Amino acid sequence: KKQQQVDIQKLAGEVREGVRTSLSKAITLIESSNTEHKEQAQSLLQELLPYTGNSIRIGITGVPGAGKSSFIEAFGSMLCHMGKKVAVLAIDPSSSLSGGSILGDKTRMEELSRNQNAFVRPSPSAGTLGGVHKKTRETMLLCEAAGFDVILIETVGVGQSETFVRGMVDFFLLLVLTGAGDELQGMKKGIMELADGIIVHKSDGDNIPKARKTVREYMQILHFLQPATPGWMSQALPASSLEKTGLQEAWDMICQFEKTIKESSYWETRRLEQTREWFQSMIVDHLIDSFFNDRDKKTQVKTLENAILKGEITVTQGVLKLFS
Amino acid sequence: KKQQQVDIQKLAGEVREGVRTSLSKAITLIESSNTEHKEQAQSLLQELLPYTGNSIRIGITGVPGAGKSSFIEAFGSMLCHMGKKVAVLAIDPSSSLSGGSILGDKTRMEELSRNQNAFVRPSPSAGTLGGVHKKTRETMLLCEAAGFDVILIETVGVGQSETFVRGMVDFFLLLVLTGAGDELQGMKKGIMELADGIIVHKSDGDNIPKARKTVREYMQILHFLQPATPGWMSQALPASSLEKTGLQEAWDMICQFEKTIKESSYWETRRLEQTREWFQSMIVDHLIDSFFNDRDKKTQVKTLENAILKGEITVTQGVLKLFS
Repeated sequence: KKQQQVDIQKLAGEVREGVRTSLSKAITLIESSNTEHKEQAQSLLQELLPYTGNSIRIGITGVPGAGKSSFIEAFGSMLCHMGKKVAVLAIDPSSSLSGGSILGDKTRMEELSRNQNAFVRPSPSAGTLGGVHKKTRETMLLCEAAGFDVILIETVGVGQSETFVRGMVDFFLLLVLTGAGDELQGMKKGIMELADGIIVHKSDGDNIPKARKTVREYMQILHFLQPATPGWMSQALPASSLEKTGLQEAWDMICQFEKTIKESSYWETRRLEQTREWFQSMIVDHLIDSFFNDRDKKTQVKTLENAILKGEITVTQGVLKLFS
Repeated sequence: KKQQQVDIQKLAGEVREGVRTSLSKAITLIESSNTEHKEQAQSLLQELLPYTGNSIRIGITGVPGAGKSSFIEAFGSMLCHMGKKVAVLAIDPSSSLSGGSILGDKTRMEELSRNQNAFVRPSPSAGTLGGVHKKTRETMLLCEAAGFDVILIETVGVGQSETFVRGMVDFFLLLVLTGAGDELQGMKKGIMELADGIIVHKSDGDNIPKARKTVREYMQILHFLQPATPGWMSQALPASSLEKTGLQEAWDMICQFEKTIKESSYWETRRLEQTREWFQSMIVDHLIDSFFNDRDKKTQVKTLENAILKGEITVTQGVLKLFS
């Protein structure tokens, strides 16, 4: 037990010094489902908590094919060259970091991965979305303790994970392609109202006029939506990872956002609210999991459900019987 | 106890005969929070379950000012004249049935209320949305047992209640006004993907050309969305409650929907699925309520939450302590 204490303290120190292999080791501990590892992971995280929170947390989403991978590669590399330390995390197993690239994009952020200022970590492959979500949050905190200034969290804008990501980041960026109408097809409805910024990607070569038109269309739609962050008017911008254009403008937008929202003091308010909601949702997850994982309860639910579906008892009677 | 049994049986008989005062009495019983009344309500409902399910359940939503009240008045009256028995329920306290009419519309379905074939019931005013939702569901079942062919459930398309309503109806109708862009402003995002049909309302007088244009715009948007009901292509139609136009077409659309979806057998599948989800969500509500209503647990959560927000313990540690 004593020995473990020492290890955790040592590991915490190394993470704070930014030792890359130690950070990886720490994340592996966080992702482990082994009971002893879990305890160690929590001690480690408690040790590092005072050193967290000093990054800007950016969520990045888009339909498959929007070019998230190449955007993060180009955008992250630019930030690294500016001297920023950039950590890239992915929230769902299907996002490009973990190899779910659909349109044959094989880059996987090779350039960024080799950059000394960058740290690229694929998503934990196992577990429920809720579980992955929890681990990505804690991994984000580890990266902050390791001194990363910018955390990019990648997700695919088709499932439920964007809501989770919106609940853990400061700025939420949506990547789209030209042709607003077509875009809507594969995109989860309601996702635009989560976005603080929209990048019309692949705005290069012959595509530039179309991209400009699409930017205008999105600006028009944004005009009608409630702001994703109170006090911030969400913006749409064109960018190209191929021609490296619009990347600086995207970063300027994010810096402007940070300045505006910190001045309004909503920055800290939102972060505290996010932590509170994280706690609440983990309590609810625990309640639901422990109830539905109870074998007896499961059987009882099934039996009552059948009686309800046959019209023998009412739904309310079913619930009353279950908890009597 | 014996006496009560008899009363319930008598009341059930009267509800089935369509005695209006008995139906009102039965609904009041369902809405009561008195423990004894609750038990009686469930016995009554169990008694009537075999006679439920024979209506078409239609949810109607729209932004305030879309004219839901006058549409339901005109549409419901038309159905009554066709010999249908029509019940109108409201799901949220802010909807027009309960007097939440914003634009000075004072009609409150006076004509419909007086119609022998109609039954208009305002929403239960108290309780959480979840509670109201449950009561509206059970009220709907009572109305079916009383022989109503068409149940219209009104809700306001700005809050969370449309998702609840979508979960209890066969057909979901969205009322909008001309000018698709302006409409979006007050409307909950994602609501369009719930709709099986869209009525561009107040398509009368000088407004007709604009309404036709708006119909085309909505048809275009619908084209890009996933269908709200598998196997049904959602449609947009113009209508006027003032000039009584488009109402027959709206009903024809709903009948066509019923025919199509019954043929695909998804009709019954969805209803069973809705009942199953209702049961599941009531179990989850019960778990959450009984946990957070426990005074000791509440205090413990507050204490742990403060420690988490101060950065003294991790969220995971907080959850572990709470359930250890």
